[in-house]
Amino acid sequence: MSHGQLAELRQKISANSIDILDLLNRRAELALKILAEKHRLDLPVFDPEREEQLLAKIVGHNQGPLPDAVIAELFRKIIETSRELQQQQIKP
Amino acid sequence: MSHGQLAELRQKISANSIDILDLLNRRAELALKILAEKHRLDLPVFDPEREEQLLAKIVGHNQGPLPDAVIAELFRKIIETSRELQQQQIKP
Repeated sequence: MSHGQLAELRQKISANSIDILDLLNRRAELALKILAEKHRLDLPVFDPEREEQLLAKIVGHNQGPLPDAVIAELFRKIIETSRELQQQQIKP
Repeated sequence: MSHGQLAELRQKISANSIDILDLLNRRAELALKILAEKHRLDLPVFDPEREEQLLAKIVGHNQGPLPDAVIAELFRKIIETSRELQQQQIKP
């Protein structure tokens, strides 16, 4: 097993991280679109029940190796960042 | 603008979340492979300098809407989960 193979794995984890970055920003864009739609429809912006449903769905899809508890914690953080971004739009 | 379009956006954010889930688990798998390689090559497992380099690279790629500081915070958390998973493998 050469250092070349370690370098290859590192390159993969680096590329994977950039893919995650892109999806996180795509998620934030969708959250902002949802905010605009809710304003248009005069719906309440924050919906803790829907957030919990989404979280349950995500954890339900988890096949590891990350444990469910870790996934839930990460996605709570991810959902929170979307919510913060929405709040910045409301109170510029 | 109908509720149907809100439902479509929600479906997109749900699908996006599952994609993020898959990439996070893929990242964890790669971290475990890197751990195995490092053991094989008798290299130190933890490399804070490389983690900082990766973080800088990720933030350098960020085009928003999420701010750099939020991306850095999320990825510190993501990198931490990989590290915790590696530690569990070391001390089963």
